[in-house]
Amino acid sequence: MAASQTIAKTVYAGAFVHSISLTELEICENGAIGVDEAGVIQFIERNGSEEWKEKEGWQSAKVVRLDGKGFFFPGFIDTHTHAPQHPNTGLFGKTTLLDWLSTYTFPLEASLSSLPKAHRIYTNFVSRTLSNGTTTCAYYATRHVPATNLLSSICLARGQRALVGRVCMDSLSPEYYRDASIDSAVADSRACVEYTRSIDPTGAIVRPIITPRFAPSCTAPCLAALGALARETHSYIQTHVSENTSEIQLVAQLFPESKSYTDVYDTANLLTEKTILAHAIHLSKQERDTIRARGAKISHCPASNTALTSGCCRVRQLLDEGLTVGLGTDVSGGFSPSILEQVRQAIWTSRFVAMGDPSAGAADGKAKLSTAEALFLATRGGAQVVGLADSVGGFEVGKEWDAQMVTLGEGVADGAGEGQVDVDAFEVGGTSTALLESTNVDVFGWESSEELVEKWVYSGDDRNCAAVWVRGRLVHKRNDVVL
Amino acid sequence: MAASQTIAKTVYAGAFVHSISLTELEICENGAIGVDEAGVIQFIERNGSEEWKEKEGWQSAKVVRLDGKGFFFPGFIDTHTHAPQHPNTGLFGKTTLLDWLSTYTFPLEASLSSLPKAHRIYTNFVSRTLSNGTTTCAYYATRHVPATNLLSSICLARGQRALVGRVCMDSLSPEYYRDASIDSAVADSRACVEYTRSIDPTGAIVRPIITPRFAPSCTAPCLAALGALARETHSYIQTHVSENTSEIQLVAQLFPESKSYTDVYDTANLLTEKTILAHAIHLSKQERDTIRARGAKISHCPASNTALTSGCCRVRQLLDEGLTVGLGTDVSGGFSPSILEQVRQAIWTSRFVAMGDPSAGAADGKAKLSTAEALFLATRGGAQVVGLADSVGGFEVGKEWDAQMVTLGEGVADGAGEGQVDVDAFEVGGTSTALLESTNVDVFGWESSEELVEKWVYSGDDRNCAAVWVRGRLVHKRNDVVL
Repeated sequence: MAASQTIAKTVYAGAFVHSISLTELEICENGAIGVDEAGVIQFIERNGSEEWKEKEGWQSAKVVRLDGKGFFFPGFIDTHTHAPQHPNTGLFGKTTLLDWLSTYTFPLEASLSSLPKAHRIYTNFVSRTLSNGTTTCAYYATRHVPATNLLSSICLARGQRALVGRVCMDSLSPEYYRDASIDSAVADSRACVEYTRSIDPTGAIVRPIITPRFAPSCTAPCLAALGALARETHSYIQTHVSENTSEIQLVAQLFPESKSYTDVYDTANLLTEKTILAHAIHLSKQERDTIRARGAKISHCPASNTALTSGCCRVRQLLDEGLTVGLGTDVSGGFSPSILEQVRQAIWTSRFVAMGDPSAGAADGKAKLSTAEALFLATRGGAQVVGLADSVGGFEVGKEWDAQMVTLGEGVADGAGEGQVDVDAFEVGGTSTALLESTNVDVFGWESSEELVEKWVYSGDDRNCAAVWVRGRLVHKRNDVVL
Repeated sequence: MAASQTIAKTVYAGAFVHSISLTELEICENGAIGVDEAGVIQFIERNGSEEWKEKEGWQSAKVVRLDGKGFFFPGFIDTHTHAPQHPNTGLFGKTTLLDWLSTYTFPLEASLSSLPKAHRIYTNFVSRTLSNGTTTCAYYATRHVPATNLLSSICLARGQRALVGRVCMDSLSPEYYRDASIDSAVADSRACVEYTRSIDPTGAIVRPIITPRFAPSCTAPCLAALGALARETHSYIQTHVSENTSEIQLVAQLFPESKSYTDVYDTANLLTEKTILAHAIHLSKQERDTIRARGAKISHCPASNTALTSGCCRVRQLLDEGLTVGLGTDVSGGFSPSILEQVRQAIWTSRFVAMGDPSAGAADGKAKLSTAEALFLATRGGAQVVGLADSVGGFEVGKEWDAQMVTLGEGVADGAGEGQVDVDAFEVGGTSTALLESTNVDVFGWESSEELVEKWVYSGDDRNCAAVWVRGRLVHKRNDVVL
């Protein structure tokens, strides 16, 4: 339905929330956003004015009204994840990056030579990310051309914006899972670029992305050939940088002529304005300066960095220095496909940076990210990282309607008004099992709008994601929602 | 129903998982646990032997069979939380402990002078903790005798084991929310002890706990009077210690004659084998030695400590030194009523301790808690902390059936077996919305039992908690579950 669905001119009526700067959320309690048949926002009204009802051509528009507690929010942007690894979500034990790769990751990825298996995993994972409100996702696939193309097809069919990359790796990878030669790595990557462009010529939904796994699993000539391919095909590029100290030492050994991990990519012409660098935890000042000079972007993956004990990315420092940062789930180094969980994890990581020596306690340092700042990274920041800052990430006239409808449930019932407790009743007043199951957010009714947003961020999950749109098309909704 | 419910002799058949030591989980894939009419485990069979079917008196027992993916697991034990603060769950902004108390906490707690409001909040919170698998909970209530007694009544009615404490605070608290005198603080606390013992004389479900808020909000004579009351009434004691560096400085100013924060409590005879100390982040070696010598216990509250930037508790060090540690949600300093979330947060905190300087990266240090260790803290460790190690926390003959039934959903469907994608279908094979909504855990069918436990720990939530029993009584179940 998503790809072929006809869009009716629609007015989204109710509260909406979005970032208007790094530090500031706009919370409009009674808005109306008009979206045309192309999925483009044509007007935004505030304060319940309903002037749109007089607007020519809008009188008979479909109205999606958000009643009850909740708000429209921009779709989340996941700037780094590995779709084939999702069956390993939650499996990492006490490993760190390099043993995690050989223990968990390479065997699973290699098994996606089976297309039915790839189909099962990819349809599940795209379903999961959509149901968590992710409207755009930068995916690593595997080495396999057919499975990578399948992921592109699934994203297009489901209507989720995606960058889909075939993984290149011609070195230091297991025999059973590596590119046979630089020529074949480039040819296979080219095949995936061409396929993705054949099914979505304008790239409105699915775009290709050149994907050298990371420096340790590519030779220098392979990296250079991929840099040339990206330039020739005007493609996006994604890779990992400076995730783990052992990995950094390995890169220094493998590329003795390079000044730094970042320099390995720069030498191969892989640092461009269209480059997404995942992790970027332990960068030197010189590396950060190079990345900024090239206009490359950073995907901060806090859940993964904590789970694999990779380190705490100093996001405040990156932002202060003018780097562009979004959030990535990095499944399955990360343990959750939810960007809302990454918002929380980014906040926790920033607190650990603020605490410095873990035994030193609370320094109320400037490293702390606020709720508003983390939500910016999840939306506007992510849009900058994936090259969509002009079209998604916030609500403005001319932008496209990539959005989620957040609902917070019915609220906690009043219970026994006089404080009497019926000791023999199984439900002693209070909260019904149906409400408990429908949301993890308890709303009492006296909360301010700002507090409702905070409750969603810290207690919310996919149960609060009632419906999701991309370019005005409905791409997911909860079963109980009627639109 | 819970309190008056008659228990049938019941055999719980299916997989079960529990801690058998700090580092080791037992995973029994085909077990049978027989629970008698008193809620006591009479036998445990492994390997699907079904010898119990020949056992006299058990042939006609009720059978609760766990089909599909899942397992019985001990009920969680929350060793520290604040029931009246639940409406503030998720609200903390960038505050740290002392400004958080005055901004968010005191005004809300004071408002529970209204018994209907207390009823609404407490019934909701007990519902929430039960639905998250918490079978025992150490609650702070408020200063108010009627509301505190109401919480005891609700726990008894719902069948949740609880320690319920009236909060004492005669100093440095706002005028609108403090004890008028030491005499009234003691008299009110005594009234709550007596009430709780009147409704549950054996203390099988609800027990009183003497609760000086924390040293900064109590005078030394008040602390001493509460120590005496605890001794006289053979009560448990709970308080906070060494949560935040500013708090520690404040204690040093307020109690200049004391050797340390811990010494303030020791001087007041508040450190006993029945004492629960929440947080315990920044303790000196001498303080830890004192706590161990007195046999007092520690409640580790990782979510709260991170949210309020209090610091990273070095749990490995506490365990290595022989201290007893459980987990606490510490709502609403903590942002979740779920002990499963605390299991994850304890693991993240241990990783930050392992990483040391956040920029220094992965030292695969011994500070890291394993999944098994964190689950131990959530069950056996918690049972030791609340004085129930002989009766709950694991599955053995003679222990009581405090348990949760964990279910992991139907598993991800095979989808289009040939890898064909129907581009025009809204559901492109893969995962149904119903399955997505029913669980956050994706099971593919090839996982080992150990991996299923890991997936539950890192992706699970209350949706996976199908049913909960305390002393053999059903105290919560999901609406879709038929037992």
